[in-house]
Amino acid sequence: MLSVPLRSFRRSNLQYIYRTTIVRTATSLVAGEPIGPSIKTSIPGPASAKLLKELNSLQQAESVQFFVDYDKSLGNYIVDVDGNVLLDCFSQISSVPLGYNHPNLLNVFNDKHNLKSLINRPALGVFPGADWPKKLQSVLMNVSPGLPMVTTMMCGSCSNENAFKALCIKYMKNERGGKTFSKEEMDSCMINAPPGSPSLSILSFHGGFHGRTFATLSTTHSKAIHKIDIPAFDWPIAHFPKYRYPLEENVSENKQEDQKCLAEVEDLIVSYNAKGKPVVGIVIEPIQSEGGDNEASPEFFQQLQRIAKRHGAGLLIDEVQTGCGPTGKMWCHEYFNLDSPPDIVTFSKKMQIGGYFHSGDMRASEPYRIFNTWMGDPGKLLILEEALNVIKKQNLLAVVEKSGNALKSGIKQLEMEHPNVINSTRGRGTFLAFNAASPKLRDEIVAKLKQKGVQTGGCGDHSVRLRTALIFQEHHAAIFLDKFREVLKEM
Amino acid sequence: MLSVPLRSFRRSNLQYIYRTTIVRTATSLVAGEPIGPSIKTSIPGPASAKLLKELNSLQQAESVQFFVDYDKSLGNYIVDVDGNVLLDCFSQISSVPLGYNHPNLLNVFNDKHNLKSLINRPALGVFPGADWPKKLQSVLMNVSPGLPMVTTMMCGSCSNENAFKALCIKYMKNERGGKTFSKEEMDSCMINAPPGSPSLSILSFHGGFHGRTFATLSTTHSKAIHKIDIPAFDWPIAHFPKYRYPLEENVSENKQEDQKCLAEVEDLIVSYNAKGKPVVGIVIEPIQSEGGDNEASPEFFQQLQRIAKRHGAGLLIDEVQTGCGPTGKMWCHEYFNLDSPPDIVTFSKKMQIGGYFHSGDMRASEPYRIFNTWMGDPGKLLILEEALNVIKKQNLLAVVEKSGNALKSGIKQLEMEHPNVINSTRGRGTFLAFNAASPKLRDEIVAKLKQKGVQTGGCGDHSVRLRTALIFQEHHAAIFLDKFREVLKEM
Repeated sequence: MLSVPLRSFRRSNLQYIYRTTIVRTATSLVAGEPIGPSIKTSIPGPASAKLLKELNSLQQAESVQFFVDYDKSLGNYIVDVDGNVLLDCFSQISSVPLGYNHPNLLNVFNDKHNLKSLINRPALGVFPGADWPKKLQSVLMNVSPGLPMVTTMMCGSCSNENAFKALCIKYMKNERGGKTFSKEEMDSCMINAPPGSPSLSILSFHGGFHGRTFATLSTTHSKAIHKIDIPAFDWPIAHFPKYRYPLEENVSENKQEDQKCLAEVEDLIVSYNAKGKPVVGIVIEPIQSEGGDNEASPEFFQQLQRIAKRHGAGLLIDEVQTGCGPTGKMWCHEYFNLDSPPDIVTFSKKMQIGGYFHSGDMRASEPYRIFNTWMGDPGKLLILEEALNVIKKQNLLAVVEKSGNALKSGIKQLEMEHPNVINSTRGRGTFLAFNAASPKLRDEIVAKLKQKGVQTGGCGDHSVRLRTALIFQEHHAAIFLDKFREVLKEM
Repeated sequence: MLSVPLRSFRRSNLQYIYRTTIVRTATSLVAGEPIGPSIKTSIPGPASAKLLKELNSLQQAESVQFFVDYDKSLGNYIVDVDGNVLLDCFSQISSVPLGYNHPNLLNVFNDKHNLKSLINRPALGVFPGADWPKKLQSVLMNVSPGLPMVTTMMCGSCSNENAFKALCIKYMKNERGGKTFSKEEMDSCMINAPPGSPSLSILSFHGGFHGRTFATLSTTHSKAIHKIDIPAFDWPIAHFPKYRYPLEENVSENKQEDQKCLAEVEDLIVSYNAKGKPVVGIVIEPIQSEGGDNEASPEFFQQLQRIAKRHGAGLLIDEVQTGCGPTGKMWCHEYFNLDSPPDIVTFSKKMQIGGYFHSGDMRASEPYRIFNTWMGDPGKLLILEEALNVIKKQNLLAVVEKSGNALKSGIKQLEMEHPNVINSTRGRGTFLAFNAASPKLRDEIVAKLKQKGVQTGGCGDHSVRLRTALIFQEHHAAIFLDKFREVLKEM
């Protein structure tokens, strides 16, 4: 065991008493939630193991952690098929806005019109329903990060793929200067050759994650197993700042790190433009998630946007994982005070429907260029509509801020108590992470937390990430911290 | 007007009387269906025009044909916001299995467990629901085209992108001969460079369509406007047979055409293998749909599969548009009597959920290589489950065959009557098309049919395609043929 100064022991005891009181007296936003985790078997238990064998014979399913009883799961608690009840701090890779079986969401399709919108899924680009423009306006544009347009898709990868296309289309329109397509362009694109299929590039960052389809995978640099054996575009990759923690003690080093990375971005744009693969856009996460929850300063993002503008490249902020509230703002990049909105912001996951907000510039002049059969799904928009209603009515962004503060200060406290085990607590809202001293220790922490009834996720090489639903409250934070304290004491 | 021999006039009159009788006495599979189209305004009408202006201010929406009242649409009839009732022979780009508001589908989410499966959409690759393996087995594997495995996705493009990845992974596993990844491979793939990101290729066909994300777009060769300005992989493209019609009068020419195309496929594989871009797979539609409803003979597909095997390339048959019954078989390639099942069969559209059936060979040995947040959607699988139940109970494949025969012989009759306007009637089941004498005439036919209350679609340069739902019966065929006859007479 590590020695801990007496002062922090005292503080943590006080916090423990305070937290225990919170848990006992707390009211959950979802009525009927369990009061805490309860574990009956090792996880995965025998029932999960049996199902995994079945599933694994039908497909590669070795990524499955356990099978879930979605009928019994409720709010922040996920119940597995062996009867284990876990506090879910991972929420389906950050894709569940209001936890499980939220009564408002279960109610959405009791409305006959909504049910018909779900069942009669149209080709939205050709035969949209009567209320589609109004719904886009009232649901999506209502939470737009300052951008006047929105194009919907089915998932995060498709959103980024199509956003990349929008960046290419916009760039080439500028290059053409108002001229129409040449016959040579029209003919050559049909056989994948320039000038019709030009060598354009999208700049991305080491550690970034933007999806796993071929083009998005070319901008994804999280883990080798995600990328190996798949052909990729030769597109420029810059370093994302790697900060030293705590931030307040490393201000000038981190500022230098920003400058180094920004200089590299500019160098790469210049060199790719020179070698005939012009950079039409920069794609970046506000917090690199799969890559290890790496954050960068508002100043970094402000300067990045200026560099993009200077070189005629669009700025695409990928909010697939950060969007829809977990950082305490609807969109994480709202923290950055950019000079103007980014050109494109992609979303999916908690938003249920995929897509991207965009400037008028990023709207293709011609139809059928950004197009597919479904172009999104009205059924998912209706779920989002009700989720956003609940977020607003219950002021869930404030809830996130409050429980995020409790979580972050609690983990920082544990960091002080166990400095050789964990460090570098970081993040915004409940979108938090910390590092373990080694990849092995990280895996141990995640596994032990699970056996105590707390589901978290790993990211990067040695980080643990929290991705709670937006109904995660202070008393849930208290439970997490107590279980985490137990784990750290055992290590 | 064209002169028509007396004999065919008599036949067509008799057919007209026969068809009128069918329409009057017919019972629709969906109770309460309108007895025919009714048109009140030009299409798009004023209400659609107003909504289009709204939508177009939020996104590029110029592909929209009209706005739909999905509450009022029923069975084969789509009702627009101006009160026009159209017989839908396009069914949302072939993506509606049972028409609109089918009572069985509207009933799916009355079941509480089903509703919870819809609302609690999980990350299926990590936390699948208790009944997921059983549902995959009872719903999807139950209609598998002889393949032992299935991997689910959200849409057609993602299905093909991930199927391409499976082809690459399988090929490189063979190349490696049991060895594990080298450090050089692991490191280089993180920066998109070989050997970790190898130059592999997928062979596709001129006129093919496999999606609009970057890699699938590199195998799509339908129209320039789909491809222009988007970077593409340098992958080999072979010619798809172009047949002369009627088939029975052009047997030897069409056989020669097959051989010419197959020889090109083999040449391309050899040359791409030689230039260090080995062909890991061939992607092909059983009937090229967007590209103009081009068909190829069973013998062509049999030999194509043998060429693929000979060169260690996988055969991917893309049944996104042809799959789930419209050709009269569950999978169109069942008509081809292949030596063995293809390596991969992709699906989406009418199947509601995307994905691909595959051989055990195409299952990656390691987890997280074919992976994303959602990996499909249980809510869509439940809709498919009920759709397949109805298809089976009502023997809809037989319905398709019957109405397909009525449509095809009726159009062939009209072809004889108007040989200078339409020709080359072709297809299987109700998955039918014919050519117009020119692109302009084609557009006119589609527009005039619409104004008479029949929705069809264009494909290729000068073809009209029918993509009816599976509940399209002989009396619907009779209505289509009568309206079409009227249109042809007016031209």
